[in-house]
Amino acid sequence: MALLRSYVSGSWHTAADEGVPLHDAATGEEVARISSAGVDFAAALAYGRAVGGPALRELTFHQRAALLKALASHLREHREELYALSARTGATLGDSKFDIDGGIGVLFSYGSKGKRELPNDTVYVEGAVEPLSRGGTFVAQHIATPLRGVAVQINAFNFPVWGPLEKFAPAFLAGVPSLVKPASSTAYLTARLVELIIESGILPEGALQFVAGNVGDLLDHVTAQDLVSFTGSASTAQKLRAHPAIIRNAVRFNAEADSLNCSILGPDAVKGTTEFDLFVKQLTTEMTVKAGQKCTAIRRAFVPASLLDDVAAAASERLAKVTVGNPASEGVRMGALASLEQREEVRRSLKALLDAGSVVFGDPEKVEVVDADAERGAFISPVLLKADPERTEPHEVEAFGPVSTLMPYTSTEQVVDFAARGGGSLAGSIVSADKEFVREVVLGAAPFHGRLLVLDAEDAKESTGHGSPMPQLVHGGPGRAGGGEEMGGIRGVLHHMQRTAVQGSPAVLSAVTGRWVAGAPRTEGVHPFRKSLAELRIGDSVVAGPRVVSQEDVDHFAEFTGDTFYAHTDPAAAAANPLFGGIVAHGYLVVSFAAGLFVSPEPGPVLANYGLENLRFLTPVKVGDSLTVTLTAKQITPRIDQEYGEVRWDADVTNADGESVAKYDVLTLVSKEQP
Amino acid sequence: MALLRSYVSGSWHTAADEGVPLHDAATGEEVARISSAGVDFAAALAYGRAVGGPALRELTFHQRAALLKALASHLREHREELYALSARTGATLGDSKFDIDGGIGVLFSYGSKGKRELPNDTVYVEGAVEPLSRGGTFVAQHIATPLRGVAVQINAFNFPVWGPLEKFAPAFLAGVPSLVKPASSTAYLTARLVELIIESGILPEGALQFVAGNVGDLLDHVTAQDLVSFTGSASTAQKLRAHPAIIRNAVRFNAEADSLNCSILGPDAVKGTTEFDLFVKQLTTEMTVKAGQKCTAIRRAFVPASLLDDVAAAASERLAKVTVGNPASEGVRMGALASLEQREEVRRSLKALLDAGSVVFGDPEKVEVVDADAERGAFISPVLLKADPERTEPHEVEAFGPVSTLMPYTSTEQVVDFAARGGGSLAGSIVSADKEFVREVVLGAAPFHGRLLVLDAEDAKESTGHGSPMPQLVHGGPGRAGGGEEMGGIRGVLHHMQRTAVQGSPAVLSAVTGRWVAGAPRTEGVHPFRKSLAELRIGDSVVAGPRVVSQEDVDHFAEFTGDTFYAHTDPAAAAANPLFGGIVAHGYLVVSFAAGLFVSPEPGPVLANYGLENLRFLTPVKVGDSLTVTLTAKQITPRIDQEYGEVRWDADVTNADGESVAKYDVLTLVSKEQP
Repeated sequence: MALLRSYVSGSWHTAADEGVPLHDAATGEEVARISSAGVDFAAALAYGRAVGGPALRELTFHQRAALLKALASHLREHREELYALSARTGATLGDSKFDIDGGIGVLFSYGSKGKRELPNDTVYVEGAVEPLSRGGTFVAQHIATPLRGVAVQINAFNFPVWGPLEKFAPAFLAGVPSLVKPASSTAYLTARLVELIIESGILPEGALQFVAGNVGDLLDHVTAQDLVSFTGSASTAQKLRAHPAIIRNAVRFNAEADSLNCSILGPDAVKGTTEFDLFVKQLTTEMTVKAGQKCTAIRRAFVPASLLDDVAAAASERLAKVTVGNPASEGVRMGALASLEQREEVRRSLKALLDAGSVVFGDPEKVEVVDADAERGAFISPVLLKADPERTEPHEVEAFGPVSTLMPYTSTEQVVDFAARGGGSLAGSIVSADKEFVREVVLGAAPFHGRLLVLDAEDAKESTGHGSPMPQLVHGGPGRAGGGEEMGGIRGVLHHMQRTAVQGSPAVLSAVTGRWVAGAPRTEGVHPFRKSLAELRIGDSVVAGPRVVSQEDVDHFAEFTGDTFYAHTDPAAAAANPLFGGIVAHGYLVVSFAAGLFVSPEPGPVLANYGLENLRFLTPVKVGDSLTVTLTAKQITPRIDQEYGEVRWDADVTNADGESVAKYDVLTLVSKEQP
Repeated sequence: MALLRSYVSGSWHTAADEGVPLHDAATGEEVARISSAGVDFAAALAYGRAVGGPALRELTFHQRAALLKALASHLREHREELYALSARTGATLGDSKFDIDGGIGVLFSYGSKGKRELPNDTVYVEGAVEPLSRGGTFVAQHIATPLRGVAVQINAFNFPVWGPLEKFAPAFLAGVPSLVKPASSTAYLTARLVELIIESGILPEGALQFVAGNVGDLLDHVTAQDLVSFTGSASTAQKLRAHPAIIRNAVRFNAEADSLNCSILGPDAVKGTTEFDLFVKQLTTEMTVKAGQKCTAIRRAFVPASLLDDVAAAASERLAKVTVGNPASEGVRMGALASLEQREEVRRSLKALLDAGSVVFGDPEKVEVVDADAERGAFISPVLLKADPERTEPHEVEAFGPVSTLMPYTSTEQVVDFAARGGGSLAGSIVSADKEFVREVVLGAAPFHGRLLVLDAEDAKESTGHGSPMPQLVHGGPGRAGGGEEMGGIRGVLHHMQRTAVQGSPAVLSAVTGRWVAGAPRTEGVHPFRKSLAELRIGDSVVAGPRVVSQEDVDHFAEFTGDTFYAHTDPAAAAANPLFGGIVAHGYLVVSFAAGLFVSPEPGPVLANYGLENLRFLTPVKVGDSLTVTLTAKQITPRIDQEYGEVRWDADVTNADGESVAKYDVLTLVSKEQP
């Protein structure tokens, strides 16, 4: 591998100069050179907006989701190659899987979420229809549409695969093209990842661009429709956030900065308990995975004062067994830091921390290594410290390596306060079997955290661990952690879209959203159950009834189903009920009769009723009331991988006075074509 | 009224100097003086955090909502006094109602939304439980908890009542104290509003602070747990956004800046149509309400080129009838601008706009006024311009007064492009009866707008108009409009809270959220329908069954209800169904039988089943299957103003193999005490 290439404006770009060398973290050898000299950044952004955006916006959410899934499968086929390159960043095989399989997992997750939680459409409809008038002619609906710009994604060196993929997936699903810029030191791995993606031909042209090297004047060209997201140091996050173009255009800026995450051991978890062992094991694992180079790693470990020595001893015992060395060698548990510069950084931070504490385990200046040269490679020993939590350093100075600080606490209130002193964290964990303690700490620490993990004997086997951001969950935290949010399932998709409140008549909202809105025109004629998905239109309706509900119906239903609740069977007791004042028909009877009225029984395109939503009984049905039901096609969602799709129907059951007695959505599966 | 006082750190503060004078907009007389000299801003923030926050967090959402409602009622009693003071800002009675009644309306709306859409609890649970493991022992739930800081709210001069209230209501409902700082020129009205609020004693101590005058070093003291929201000019928004403390602490900053909002007339709406008249009427109304000093006012009016002259003529005719003058005088339709400085600003902007166009109606330098001195008061004529939309000025220069610019367009694509040239707007409107045109413009313009109104004959009578932000809907827009979002119903509440993903076992999540999570322990014993709300605990359960579903049951149910859908009645056709492969029981039969099993029929605390949610039929029920149902109390919500509350039950119907055949939530009303 020689000079890394950028992929911009639809083609591979080789830098105009020789670039700077990137070194193998374990051996110090040159791996590649990097430079973005000659890249026209304004043109790249313009290309993304003009080519990538329109191509993505032509696809529905389900189509984009399917491409993410295909991409994930493709990359999975090439994992071995990526693992090998990853070892050169100092990563053990375990570390590499965390990064590479983790990144591929995000693509799979978004592929699956996109299909299950987003419509097979290009517009996202958010929340309920908001009534704005008494007469119902003026209503509103929030929608989300993709921003028309480019998502500029500036990543950190520690996750050269997961980092770009976790930012790319939600942007892509939203319909927004990405421009990926990795940190230089490990950019050769991201470069290969991007080559694999581009060469696969799976993505629409312009959906992904890549810059190897610095971003030059890129940010000068961002507009209000572009987005910038950044993972890295708090100081760089601040610089970017204050960039004139970002300020001037109110550009959506999302930062995820490493933070002083804490782990808290409960007072119940004394030596000998499962939770004690879980705490110690998690702490030492978090210290050594990726050689502690994780934004989410545990930097502050709070333990009851009476347990400090026990924890220190148990953790030291585990850390003593950690073999450091060539990440590619058998038996090595911890590889190198990403670069010699990083090691210098870590040692500098350790000096500051040692002003406020002392070493429990490890020597910042010395480490025994296997199959490697401890000086040419960026190796360092795991270092566990202990410190006085009333000092500021342990809450403010981060050593971005295999470093953690033990600190004592004496009350629940106090440890919540200590947790908050980090000034905002990505992740925290509480290890305890005491639910009261857990509740108090979680609710107290939540305003300062993006994610909190509670570890105990019950979930330990399946727990994904303190340090693992999950695609389903928000990743980010307030303050020091950058104040941003990534992933979080569909939340991360919506971050790339503009939310707009649309006001108008029900007919207008139906036309805009493609969903029938109550009050919009309905079409009667052929029974809608006789129409295939291809023939059915929103607004297609059937009005059926009336059917009178008799005393015999109610008595019989009670006897047949066993539902002899007094409001249906005992006139005196029912009369005393403050809401009914007399016998009422069962709600289940009402919806069963409604189905009997609206159904078209002969075989046809309707395959099944798979559910029901938002059922509300609005007016009691008394004996002698007659029921009419209006069923209207509300939303039609063809599945891209099946011969059928979903139809959501609006059901409105009314009495003789025209009052709604029950309203609900009926969910059915309907064939795309007539059988 | 002399020197306006601030209300900080629990008491009224009189400035240490004489302050600067504030003038009546119509007469030029001095109304009051203003200064914040001597206010200790760091102390005020600390007080809000230490006193206001804890007091608010002790209340549930429903309790806070009830206080908002009480406050709204209280202020409604004092409207007349506020109207009188409002006239001095240049506002007519109509303008004053827009501001004052609008603000009170926001309080009522949040009071109502808080009660209906938020739990009677202090923690907000967002979205579904996220499964994170196969075995189900490790799951996650997003929660939102109030930020522990102060919401600093910097308001504009044009809405001295609505502005503070629309920012205060969602913060208060979230549990975050507010510090309100109005723009000086109309601050005497906000000052009186705040006096009324404080004197009422309705709010907990520390929930609201008020600064009359400039904010001094206030922003230097904001932390990651504070919020800053600003309404005003784009240039001030930029300055605040780049404030070192805001950047350094990643403070949540929300800006709402005036923008170059557009209104678009559809090609169908030719002269003589209802929509033509609606467009012209709305345009002239938006120009003159609040003398055009609305962030949402129409600055750019796009009309089909062929209709430009017709619109110009019709609008001029309407504008000619607008009486300008003393806002307190009978018959005056438009009052004064807020100050003479504002008039100078408007005239300056008009000069720039006239470089790109010409006057259709009005004279920027001359206006006839009623009951007033046109020079001492800040009066100006409505001015309608026309301009070439290919010039940049009409899309970039805002005259913040009764000024709008007509521009021609020739295609749908073109007008969408013109709309976007505003660089991001708060509100836009489309006036057309052509649904295709409307759909195309709405979806094309949405990424550039926070709100879009579609006006036509159908909704005109009930429409609240282009310029009216609604508490239910987001207010804000991308780019030039500030990139923020206010209100939007509960969205605005969540803006003041930290979202945190909590991972743990189902039992832990239940303990943290107060809601039973599937997989958490259940308690059997006394039938839970026999327990009052006070006695019931989440997790209380009943397991009932089995009941075998016979062929006779299915046949009978079909006959009784009329639901003879072939999958229940026609063995051959049912066998051909790709999902069932044979006769299945009705879903409604399954849930009816389940109710028959779990019900405890005698009179007791359970009053009614008022609904059902998220019903999914998961496994077909065949003849001979036996059903068991497990009903578990999931969420308990006492109503603060009733003798009963809501209980949500988890219902899980299983077959003999233990597979779930149906899952749903049953919604009931239960008495707080035993009857």
